[in-house]
Amino acid sequence: MMKNLKVPIIIVNYKTYSEGTGKKAIMLSRIAEEVSLETGVNISVAPQLADLASVCDAVSIPVFAQHIDPIFPGNSTGHVLLESVKEAGAVGTLINHSERRLKLCDIEIIIARARESGMVSVVCTNNAAVSEAAAALKPDIVSLEPPELIGTGIPVSKSKPEVVTQTVTLVKHVNPCVLTLCGAGITKGEDVAAALKLGTRGVLVASGIVKAKDPRKVLMEFSVAINESL
Amino acid sequence: MMKNLKVPIIIVNYKTYSEGTGKKAIMLSRIAEEVSLETGVNISVAPQLADLASVCDAVSIPVFAQHIDPIFPGNSTGHVLLESVKEAGAVGTLINHSERRLKLCDIEIIIARARESGMVSVVCTNNAAVSEAAAALKPDIVSLEPPELIGTGIPVSKSKPEVVTQTVTLVKHVNPCVLTLCGAGITKGEDVAAALKLGTRGVLVASGIVKAKDPRKVLMEFSVAINESL
Amino acid sequence: MMKNLKVPIIIVNYKTYSEGTGKKAIMLSRIAEEVSLETGVNISVAPQLADLASVCDAVSIPVFAQHIDPIFPGNSTGHVLLESVKEAGAVGTLINHSERRLKLCDIEIIIARARESGMVSVVCTNNAAVSEAAAALKPDIVSLEPPELIGTGIPVSKSKPEVVTQTVTLVKHVNPCVLTLCGAGITKGEDVAAALKLGTRGVLVASGIVKAKDPRKVLMEFSVAINESL
Amino acid sequence: MMKNLKVPIIIVNYKTYSEGTGKKAIMLSRIAEEVSLETGVNISVAPQLADLASVCDAVSIPVFAQHIDPIFPGNSTGHVLLESVKEAGAVGTLINHSERRLKLCDIEIIIARARESGMVSVVCTNNAAVSEAAAALKPDIVSLEPPELIGTGIPVSKSKPEVVTQTVTLVKHVNPCVLTLCGAGITKGEDVAAALKLGTRGVLVASGIVKAKDPRKVLMEFSVAINESL
Repeated sequence: MMKNLKVPIIIVNYKTYSEGTGKKAIMLSRIAEEVSLETGVNISVAPQLADLASVCDAVSIPVFAQHIDPIFPGNSTGHVLLESVKEAGAVGTLINHSERRLKLCDIEIIIARARESGMVSVVCTNNAAVSEAAAALKPDIVSLEPPELIGTGIPVSKSKPEVVTQTVTLVKHVNPCVLTLCGAGITKGEDVAAALKLGTRGVLVASGIVKAKDPRKVLMEFSVAINESL
Repeated sequence: MMKNLKVPIIIVNYKTYSEGTGKKAIMLSRIAEEVSLETGVNISVAPQLADLASVCDAVSIPVFAQHIDPIFPGNSTGHVLLESVKEAGAVGTLINHSERRLKLCDIEIIIARARESGMVSVVCTNNAAVSEAAAALKPDIVSLEPPELIGTGIPVSKSKPEVVTQTVTLVKHVNPCVLTLCGAGITKGEDVAAALKLGTRGVLVASGIVKAKDPRKVLMEFSVAINESL
Repeated sequence: MMKNLKVPIIIVNYKTYSEGTGKKAIMLSRIAEEVSLETGVNISVAPQLADLASVCDAVSIPVFAQHIDPIFPGNSTGHVLLESVKEAGAVGTLINHSERRLKLCDIEIIIARARESGMVSVVCTNNAAVSEAAAALKPDIVSLEPPELIGTGIPVSKSKPEVVTQTVTLVKHVNPCVLTLCGAGITKGEDVAAALKLGTRGVLVASGIVKAKDPRKVLMEFSVAINESL
Repeated sequence: MMKNLKVPIIIVNYKTYSEGTGKKAIMLSRIAEEVSLETGVNISVAPQLADLASVCDAVSIPVFAQHIDPIFPGNSTGHVLLESVKEAGAVGTLINHSERRLKLCDIEIIIARARESGMVSVVCTNNAAVSEAAAALKPDIVSLEPPELIGTGIPVSKSKPEVVTQTVTLVKHVNPCVLTLCGAGITKGEDVAAALKLGTRGVLVASGIVKAKDPRKVLMEFSVAINESL
């Protein structure tokens, strides 16, 4: 699947922020695309489902769904079908975000469906043990995000480096093909640089970009940090 | 809210059917629009979330979301924000479909949010008692769908007329402003006519249209039945 | 069902407090029984499920389950069957507590099952609109508990008297047989007296008793307040 | 934890069967105890929560809870606290049964809590991949139960031997300390013997015993099969 995605990468999760909804989702995605083109750094965005198709139409950077359900075509009113987000243009999906935790058996189904459909699977996890378990399900990416740091501005890569390192090690041990990202509290270029130094292949970031006064400036700072780390 | 919606009405729920996903969702919506224009009957569609914006762009008939979450702008990754479906062009939302049942307190929040935002709220229910409870929450529409009949081709309006009548009566008693629809097993014009005769203001239909060999023909039959009932 | 329960009443919810678990649940229930016998005031307790049978064996005051599931005998591993709590000796069950919210259709099933089995149903609600909806499902009791006040020591009966009054009125209007209790922040006799004055038939209380330094003293204060209100 | 439990073992899940509720749960547990004493085979039972304390009082064989919640003492009305089932006398708990699937992050919390409290953790799984993930969380036991075979009388150990073998191998590879059981469709001694031959350390069985005409006879047959396999 990873032919659809290059690392190191910055994935920007729009959550349900007003600043990342509707027309603002498209504007923000254009900014992300511009920074990516300017710096050569891989930047990807994960808008809300109702904005997915418009964002995919508007930009050429890879776009993720924030969630899909463990379902097949049929009778699942109000659920998110892999085929629908794929046809809308998404290259992959976040899975099990801390704000959308899933059952173990459902995560397995979603990862397997993504694999069969050529979509990138990014499983979010809360600690090293859960990351190891998630890696056993063979997703493309595990993204460690200690929930207690999300939205705090206290970067996981600097405040819990040992958890990041342990996660990178355990994930690699279970399955060397699975990459590790990290997120939570990432607001500065140095947080991104620290994340890469710990062995991750990028960051999953939300408020640090979406709610920034100047998202372009922060994305640029992140991208420079990545380029300097290479 | 009902300025956005006229009755009697046919609401077509696309569920997660392949026949109602992606480009097929747009084609089906165009058919619905054509039949509506030809017959003057109000027809509305409820595509999947990833198709919502494209469908709203493609047609001028009212479009519903299949579900929204009881959330506000902010930290709700993977959930459905009212503001996002409204900006995509939806006039309202299904709530508590039998395949997406919700907590009582969440239904209340969603209805209240819809009301404040000028969106039409259609709460699905499974029997007369639950319909009465739902009506107390002041949605625009209650839609009775006995789950055991969904997808069976056994029409609720003919096999359980007394439940439909009782629902219409209880809903009206709790709140005379709340309209009642019914659904489940509706596949023929006579099922629609029977539904109107029992006091409902239309039908919520899914497989009967979406999985029909010739959706246009069935929609036309439904519309003729409505026009003959007026 | 209400032959099993007299009002006005104090229902003490043990939640999962350490102070109300295991042997401590039995000791606390004996205190509740003693105060009830001494003062003649109806006091009921709702211990955890694993303590239900022992508490029912130890005391003669009415005992409630904190929750039951909308299931029937059969394949429901890890769920709570009405028949099991009834055989353990419970006279009724809390339903839809703010810490265990349920789907609308499931609340209806549980209330109906309780009614058929001669068990008292107490549905917890968060505001007047939800209380009205709950009352339409014909439980024995609706218990209003604004979640934002739970555990605060700010009594609902004094800080939100208008919500209590409105709830009492709406519930009575939907179904005159349904009684209203209230809870949240109740820690003093005067809070209980205020609750009765607003038209409720008692209180649902948790930390105010279970985590009190001297639960007997507080229960006695509540009971005196009830006797003085009669 | 496994000092509390010897293998090979038969764990009998009472689900919410009428035949395993209340007094019948105690009678069935006495039968299990008698067969265990007679044959020397380890037999354990998992009654419903409301019966847990009475069963623990009545018999000396190890007793399991069917489920506990990922919570700590405090505000969790209607949830199952580890401390409450431990004080009731349980030696461990089933986790993530096919009828009570849990979120990945919650399974991790429950296993960790069980470990700290000296309780045996038995995680149920549906296939080899999920078993491997579960094993990474370091429970004492993983119990494979393909949901499509549960209650069918088609034994997993004979109809899907390759899935059982693969599960045993993957679990051992992730963590050699984690034992594997299997279940689903087990009704005869030969099914149990087949399970042991495939490398499992016992069976998790429900209807095969609880709904048997003569549970003692079937348990005896299972136990003889285990003794002959040693």
